[in-house]
Amino acid sequence: MPFILNAWYVAAWPREVEPGKVLARTICNEPMVLFRDEAGQAVALEDRCCHRQMPLAKGWLESGTLRCGYHGLRFDGRGKCVEIPGQTSIPPRARVRGYPLVERYGWLWVWPGDAAKADPALIPAIFTRMDHPEWTPCGGTTYVKCHYQLISDNLLDLTHETYIHRSSLGNQAVVEHPISTKGDAEKVVVQRLIPDHDPAPFWKAMLHRKLGQHVNADRWQVIHFEPPANLVLDVGVTPAGHPRADGVEGCNTNAITPETEDSTWYFWGFTRKFGRDDAALSQKLVDTVANIFEEDREACEAVHAVMKRNAGRAVIDVNADQGTILARRMVAERIKAERAGTAQAAE
Amino acid sequence: MPFILNAWYVAAWPREVEPGKVLARTICNEPMVLFRDEAGQAVALEDRCCHRQMPLAKGWLESGTLRCGYHGLRFDGRGKCVEIPGQTSIPPRARVRGYPLVERYGWLWVWPGDAAKADPALIPAIFTRMDHPEWTPCGGTTYVKCHYQLISDNLLDLTHETYIHRSSLGNQAVVEHPISTKGDAEKVVVQRLIPDHDPAPFWKAMLHRKLGQHVNADRWQVIHFEPPANLVLDVGVTPAGHPRADGVEGCNTNAITPETEDSTWYFWGFTRKFGRDDAALSQKLVDTVANIFEEDREACEAVHAVMKRNAGRAVIDVNADQGTILARRMVAERIKAERAGTAQAAE
Amino acid sequence: MPFILNAWYVAAWPREVEPGKVLARTICNEPMVLFRDEAGQAVALEDRCCHRQMPLAKGWLESGTLRCGYHGLRFDGRGKCVEIPGQTSIPPRARVRGYPLVERYGWLWVWPGDAAKADPALIPAIFTRMDHPEWTPCGGTTYVKCHYQLISDNLLDLTHETYIHRSSLGNQAVVEHPISTKGDAEKVVVQRLIPDHDPAPFWKAMLHRKLGQHVNADRWQVIHFEPPANLVLDVGVTPAGHPRADGVEGCNTNAITPETEDSTWYFWGFTRKFGRDDAALSQKLVDTVANIFEEDREACEAVHAVMKRNAGRAVIDVNADQGTILARRMVAERIKAERAGTAQAAE
Repeated sequence: MPFILNAWYVAAWPREVEPGKVLARTICNEPMVLFRDEAGQAVALEDRCCHRQMPLAKGWLESGTLRCGYHGLRFDGRGKCVEIPGQTSIPPRARVRGYPLVERYGWLWVWPGDAAKADPALIPAIFTRMDHPEWTPCGGTTYVKCHYQLISDNLLDLTHETYIHRSSLGNQAVVEHPISTKGDAEKVVVQRLIPDHDPAPFWKAMLHRKLGQHVNADRWQVIHFEPPANLVLDVGVTPAGHPRADGVEGCNTNAITPETEDSTWYFWGFTRKFGRDDAALSQKLVDTVANIFEEDREACEAVHAVMKRNAGRAVIDVNADQGTILARRMVAERIKAERAGTAQAAE
Repeated sequence: MPFILNAWYVAAWPREVEPGKVLARTICNEPMVLFRDEAGQAVALEDRCCHRQMPLAKGWLESGTLRCGYHGLRFDGRGKCVEIPGQTSIPPRARVRGYPLVERYGWLWVWPGDAAKADPALIPAIFTRMDHPEWTPCGGTTYVKCHYQLISDNLLDLTHETYIHRSSLGNQAVVEHPISTKGDAEKVVVQRLIPDHDPAPFWKAMLHRKLGQHVNADRWQVIHFEPPANLVLDVGVTPAGHPRADGVEGCNTNAITPETEDSTWYFWGFTRKFGRDDAALSQKLVDTVANIFEEDREACEAVHAVMKRNAGRAVIDVNADQGTILARRMVAERIKAERAGTAQAAE
Repeated sequence: MPFILNAWYVAAWPREVEPGKVLARTICNEPMVLFRDEAGQAVALEDRCCHRQMPLAKGWLESGTLRCGYHGLRFDGRGKCVEIPGQTSIPPRARVRGYPLVERYGWLWVWPGDAAKADPALIPAIFTRMDHPEWTPCGGTTYVKCHYQLISDNLLDLTHETYIHRSSLGNQAVVEHPISTKGDAEKVVVQRLIPDHDPAPFWKAMLHRKLGQHVNADRWQVIHFEPPANLVLDVGVTPAGHPRADGVEGCNTNAITPETEDSTWYFWGFTRKFGRDDAALSQKLVDTVANIFEEDREACEAVHAVMKRNAGRAVIDVNADQGTILARRMVAERIKAERAGTAQAAE
């Protein structure tokens, strides 16, 4: 199954591409090198010198241009060769591919497909809360050796919390409450409401932190999915019967970027309306979410290995799979449309 | 070269599948999960949930049923789904494949092929001495990265003892005495008798342990082979000219189970009529045999790697190869017959 | 791209094949075993017993013959089986392939192709200075996971010294001076002269060692290439305006031997006319050159990995590539001629 190429994917956190730093990262099978040009603007080039195919990430920056570490060719932020040591003329073919790059919502987004279609307006607006004045963000990266859709599948069916995350996010109450699923041409929304129950350990601790006591809670889980694999989960608990603002409101943001068919860069954030000035809480949340996603990583990698051995074999679907089914259908249609567009353009 | 699938293979020692324990093991390319149901009966299922393909071995047992660790589907010992969390109806397709399993001769045997043909009477009776009142068994497992037939080849030509096992089982006397080889449609028997000689180190020590002195010995090696790769070696030494009961009589049992084309679970036992109540001797024999089989493992893995690079190239046969040639012919015929049977059934 | 098989390749240093020692080494995809026969003559056989395909390198020497460690077949230095344990007759087919081997210029050379064409006169005479009375040699081996031609490419374009070896052999003066390139049917010669400059760190230190002071220098680099991948680099510095004999004269010898398409045994020497009796200098030179070639190894392996992912994609050539282009053309023609010869012989 190919990737959607005409899409924005998160390639890195801005802190991974500080001035003077060179970062190698493969996105949708395209090895890229990321760095900042003289103006401080992050850029992405193909990670392959056009001369003797040295990875450019082995080179170094000189005044915002990238020097190849082998024979010293030098490239600007758009991939144009600006120096060939030992000669004065530079042939026009001396260039490497550049990829559109936009910094937004606390992430660096690249477009691995047709650059002419790289409209920044297509960056998913669902991530606005990552740099919103009323929310406090934190986040991290999990590298997973699986196909990227296994991670969106995972997030679209939170039944797994009861089993995989039984020590943190899950309890019996999760599987006992039904989901409602809605989809249109652009998104899928899956919602589960769990009223008046003894909340799972993570939420119990967060609510106790705010209230100073344990109380029964109403819990909500609202999953927004947009292709290829952008997901925002509105999550939280509030004392049973109270408005959400009385409780703890969080938002888990997930930008899932294929590295190859078998590996994925999973960028995630957790942004919140509670304990906003508590830096220790930010660190604790990063550590906790990272540990929880380690459990998901182990599951997704195990499933990926089994799927590779069982290509084409049937599975059964259950009620909780409505969201994943709609999301996969949407991705398949986008790939089909992209291929049709490419075929048409080639005529 | 495919495997014989309609056959019993040892999958594990019973001690590896204690109540409450879940064991993953691949047999003839089939990933299986072994556990004990509520009645304590060992069972084997395909190690893949029928829902989202999670390995079931990552799950846990609840009252003799196996809970998938991802979304919580639960299966009984025959592979039938008995619970889907969050819904009451269970579709009939919600099941995973079960494999016939029989516990016999101190081993758990599974049948990876057509379950309708899985007659427990086909379990090789040559292993009876592993749980016979007059014999004391012990044993272990060696994991070998080679095709399983290289291990039966190894056992059918004991000439190698003179070279590979020259510090334990082999000496010049072994290669200086001829073998006799007999085969019929169901078995191969290779015999070597080595009269009145100074025995090899292992047997010298065993005989001295019984007699308190070093004497010349008569040694016997009788190899019984049955397909796919079941071998019993009657082995021992007795003072030269004496009946066998005056010496030390042992029996090496070998159940060789393909994991993949390139890896093998080699289950072996050593059962004896001497020093029967000496538990320390059992441990010593397990350690000694394990070390000897490490030498075979290294040889078989080296040969396997060379064979993979040299598919189709000729080798020469020597006199000592009569047993291996008959055994491989027998396996090839069984595979041919199994394929013909499958083709006929498909018509 | 196949290898030139009808050619001499360095397989080992003589010190790696001392009497009684057995060395396994793969040359041009041919696994070989090297040892010395009873006369002390180094020989090379295929590393595969003709009986059950055990690597012969797992065996041991008995009076200059090689005993297979599995079932004990024994072979002489030409590959003829001279013993089959347990039987008196030895079939004529009981033999393994032998490879022509010549010890010359401080190396063991093997011929992986048609033995009838293995003329010792074809061993490249450019390496004479490795055992010449007026030169003092030292050397080592670097194992590189790349196609062997990437190493000859590396040596034919020393522009890379300015970037890869900027702390030892390179400085700005290297890239600022042009090369001259000459080629005929049998060799390529690339020359760069760098007059009157502050020399790069390695040469600065060598010249200071001789003169006791830092001076500006004239530097020379003359690269001789002969297929498949034999390279001698005449290198050195002398005080600006002086004859070469007043300075330090070195010669870097490089015999580059394919192991597989993806790995290479790179044998290198450094022989010199300065500090000839200084054993500590020999060790220092071995260590220094080994460290420098580690930098090349890293570059060549990085380029190899990129090339594997980009088969068939274009690159641009620059002025400094004249030598590599001629050399690769020469190798391609040799392969073409060898194939034509083989095809003709087959008719």
